[in-house]
Amino acid sequence: MEIKYVVDTLFIIFSMTLIVLMVPGFAMLEAGLVRTKNVSAVLTVNVMIYAVASMAFLLVGFSYAFGGWESQDTVSKWAFFMFQMAFVGKSINIMSGGVSERSRILPLVVFTVVMGAFIYPTIVNLTWGANFLEGTFLDISNMYDLAGSTVIHSTGGWALLAAILIMGPRRGRYAGNKIKVIPASNIPLVTLGALLLWIGWFGFNGGSVGAISSKESADTVALTIMNTNTAGLAGAIVAWIMMYVQYRKFDITMILNGALGGLVAVTAGPDLYSIHQPIIIGAIGGALVVFAVPFFDRLRLDDPVGALSVHLVNGIWGTIAVGLFTDHKLIDQLKGIVVVGLFVFVVSFIVIYVINKLILLRADDDEQLEGLDAVECGMEAYPEFTRTI
Amino acid sequence: MEIKYVVDTLFIIFSMTLIVLMVPGFAMLEAGLVRTKNVSAVLTVNVMIYAVASMAFLLVGFSYAFGGWESQDTVSKWAFFMFQMAFVGKSINIMSGGVSERSRILPLVVFTVVMGAFIYPTIVNLTWGANFLEGTFLDISNMYDLAGSTVIHSTGGWALLAAILIMGPRRGRYAGNKIKVIPASNIPLVTLGALLLWIGWFGFNGGSVGAISSKESADTVALTIMNTNTAGLAGAIVAWIMMYVQYRKFDITMILNGALGGLVAVTAGPDLYSIHQPIIIGAIGGALVVFAVPFFDRLRLDDPVGALSVHLVNGIWGTIAVGLFTDHKLIDQLKGIVVVGLFVFVVSFIVIYVINKLILLRADDDEQLEGLDAVECGMEAYPEFTRTI
Amino acid sequence: MEIKYVVDTLFIIFSMTLIVLMVPGFAMLEAGLVRTKNVSAVLTVNVMIYAVASMAFLLVGFSYAFGGWESQDTVSKWAFFMFQMAFVGKSINIMSGGVSERSRILPLVVFTVVMGAFIYPTIVNLTWGANFLEGTFLDISNMYDLAGSTVIHSTGGWALLAAILIMGPRRGRYAGNKIKVIPASNIPLVTLGALLLWIGWFGFNGGSVGAISSKESADTVALTIMNTNTAGLAGAIVAWIMMYVQYRKFDITMILNGALGGLVAVTAGPDLYSIHQPIIIGAIGGALVVFAVPFFDRLRLDDPVGALSVHLVNGIWGTIAVGLFTDHKLIDQLKGIVVVGLFVFVVSFIVIYVINKLILLRADDDEQLEGLDAVECGMEAYPEFTRTI
Repeated sequence: MEIKYVVDTLFIIFSMTLIVLMVPGFAMLEAGLVRTKNVSAVLTVNVMIYAVASMAFLLVGFSYAFGGWESQDTVSKWAFFMFQMAFVGKSINIMSGGVSERSRILPLVVFTVVMGAFIYPTIVNLTWGANFLEGTFLDISNMYDLAGSTVIHSTGGWALLAAILIMGPRRGRYAGNKIKVIPASNIPLVTLGALLLWIGWFGFNGGSVGAISSKESADTVALTIMNTNTAGLAGAIVAWIMMYVQYRKFDITMILNGALGGLVAVTAGPDLYSIHQPIIIGAIGGALVVFAVPFFDRLRLDDPVGALSVHLVNGIWGTIAVGLFTDHKLIDQLKGIVVVGLFVFVVSFIVIYVINKLILLRADDDEQLEGLDAVECGMEAYPEFTRTI
Repeated sequence: MEIKYVVDTLFIIFSMTLIVLMVPGFAMLEAGLVRTKNVSAVLTVNVMIYAVASMAFLLVGFSYAFGGWESQDTVSKWAFFMFQMAFVGKSINIMSGGVSERSRILPLVVFTVVMGAFIYPTIVNLTWGANFLEGTFLDISNMYDLAGSTVIHSTGGWALLAAILIMGPRRGRYAGNKIKVIPASNIPLVTLGALLLWIGWFGFNGGSVGAISSKESADTVALTIMNTNTAGLAGAIVAWIMMYVQYRKFDITMILNGALGGLVAVTAGPDLYSIHQPIIIGAIGGALVVFAVPFFDRLRLDDPVGALSVHLVNGIWGTIAVGLFTDHKLIDQLKGIVVVGLFVFVVSFIVIYVINKLILLRADDDEQLEGLDAVECGMEAYPEFTRTI
Repeated sequence: MEIKYVVDTLFIIFSMTLIVLMVPGFAMLEAGLVRTKNVSAVLTVNVMIYAVASMAFLLVGFSYAFGGWESQDTVSKWAFFMFQMAFVGKSINIMSGGVSERSRILPLVVFTVVMGAFIYPTIVNLTWGANFLEGTFLDISNMYDLAGSTVIHSTGGWALLAAILIMGPRRGRYAGNKIKVIPASNIPLVTLGALLLWIGWFGFNGGSVGAISSKESADTVALTIMNTNTAGLAGAIVAWIMMYVQYRKFDITMILNGALGGLVAVTAGPDLYSIHQPIIIGAIGGALVVFAVPFFDRLRLDDPVGALSVHLVNGIWGTIAVGLFTDHKLIDQLKGIVVVGLFVFVVSFIVIYVINKLILLRADDDEQLEGLDAVECGMEAYPEFTRTI
């Protein structure tokens, strides 16, 4: 019916708009978490990722993922494209955020092209898309992943892990047995960014239901958004309590990362849970972030924004949770996690390794000391404010 | 009809999303208005309020306010829940904002639990909800308050007044007969926050119409949003003129608070007014803010963000305005104001008094001097920028 | 049918909300681009423009533009008003942004009244509205301009050109043959602002289709938003490449202005293009910005935010593009550009000239040195951060 087509199109446009709001969300979050001398570079990377990944997806990735530009029966294909396009950059934001303060921009842009045109569309093809491995041993289409705990968040996380292994930590971050604490430079930006991401998630997960035009789907969309939000609440509260018990301080960056961890964790199945299950799933998500941040530091995997903890760890946890809390088989979930992980990690490792050989991904120690804003952008983020670090 | 259910659900989700945008709105507004040494603490409080109040409302408050989780006939109950949940934190934001720069975080979180699970749901129960006092002398369900001039804004304002009376002013704010002016630390954040609140108000008031799926309700929703906006315009313009005539300066914080005052004032009846009445109502709202800010200072009620002036004074004015400009009886409006005011003020006073005895709400003078970011969060908001105050 | 009326009203409200999000968008962009000593003034101007222009449009401009307040058949007239009202301030933001750091606020507010009540509504009357010149030699209603490449962006640009010619450059900007580079003070705000504008554009252009309630219009809206976004992507990418090739630096402000240039350029006909044409149109838009910024500097037309390059140049280019890429006649497009340009430039010049005689528009050199925040607002934007410039 025409009116269903219309309402679903409007719904997808609304959802897409919320997801695009995650572009300033990620940009502000990361700009707030790094030192002022690297803020312009981080912002540039975020804007370039949106521009380049989206263009690569328009020209190449979308057709590859979905097998062409055929019309949708139930929703405008242009709206469907925009919704899918809004996702692409997110997986790359996860990777770029985690290598902040030490990566040059040009190689990141090159990687963005490969990720937007090939790596991410391959994962979408296998899961939500045309599935060119249908019926083979590697078919993972039985994995349930509504909005991308694995497809988006783990994918970004595996690519980040590959990048960190190749690039090493920031200059001076690990000296001897000491871990140098590098404080976030702008807490209001961190907060603004995390909250914009939170709101964007309503579109991310709600829109992934795909339709709202029947009573049943309207209920599912609303439940999905409610459960998404609940997991974020639980993640924030648990991260707060754990940090408070340990340090007697309110650690706002950990609280926000706990919320984001909960949001990532619920993303695989928010349409399937009862209204109280997301409390457990999100709480575990928040706890995992609190445990994982120092864990990765002990492994000397330097991740300035906590992206491995938020997106990789909770992407995996969220995908498993669907196997634990719903009728979907745990084995299908695990198989999806493993296949996606192996593919993304190996391909990303090779691609980043080659890029690094050709155009040097890592800024050298002198450049890191000076700051990437001067080296890469020729522009300070706050030229009139005295810096003390 | 199914399509009406669908469209109303989409409309409520859209409105809810705008209201959640008020979370960063309040956070940025308050972070910009306080001194840099208290910015992380303010942001933490805002995030914790959203997390804790929403969770308390999910677990306890919603059922209490509305008498259970029965399905809605006309809109998805999950969407209805999310819409109502988005309101809760707002009343507490009003209270927490007004005690900024001198309140510890943990007692505020405890108060948030009480407010989100009990105090605010009681008011909703009496007005928009199950009404357990129906037919009694204290029945205030004849008060017309579309979107909460009294239910949200005065409620938050009365709780704030109780808190200020218990806590006293910030260190050094009133010395002898002098009032120490403490300038806002970040005007762009103040502006961003106020404008996000303004936009969120479209969802707050528009969504409170509850349905958009008939021609009549669609017109009402659109009129409601238009009138809401008009009152904000008028409040800003009047606050500007009054300040300019007096000081020959453009006071952006007062202009923005004037706009917010106008928005609070129109909130009780934006669906009932003609398109020109909100100009008067909002103009008076803006003027009240300009008068009330120095008035409360003369009473030594120290309110760093002007929340008493914006929310309490205009919450009352807006509820009265419905009695003056529409067919609703002024006496019903006044009765609602008084009953809500007495209940919220007395209960909040007792609760805050007890909390203060048990876990000390007020940061002492040394802690205030050092700043709550260091004391409560162990984290500066802008560690690389030299502070001169 | 009632449901179409409802869905179109919801769609217009959604679109309007995105456009109002451009108010913080412009405010943050401009606040980030100017020096800290002028930030409060810039923010004040942005808020005042929204308040005053919207009020002028409500009281006078809307009726003049559209010939009265008759009901719409297909959408709530209140929603239609809000959508049109959300446009007004944009054309004035363009003008005010370009004279930042040297203009007093009061005369800008006076000009805002004239622009919001008369100049802008005249252009709307001739193009999208009642058309009081219908059938005359000056009838430009055959110009196709979906969302205002000419009606909004060139209009603002011509007014800005008039203002710059009358006011001259900022103090010390052009000394001898040297052009003093004045760096942006806050790159995160610039980025946030530009991205909010980008997202707002989805509502600007999508909403200008006017209806979504048929399958055909739903497809058109979705295509419009997709094409709008694509032109922004292309503008950003081209501006990046041109700057990188020339300077080997990533210039984030130019990348963002390139994106905005692409967005302005596509605005006249995003509903008419195939999905690849916006790549060309946006790419040329981005390139034009990169060429135009130094070009206007060579002409000593001092424009701190690049508004002439983004809005005037690309407003013209975008209107021409419809004549090149679609069946609309180039001559109709050119006639529209010329008539609008002559009218707005001449009338704005006269109005600004008179205002400048009566209440001096330009802050004098001492005031500019001290900064407009102190002179006009009595309030620093960041009082606790040491300024080094």
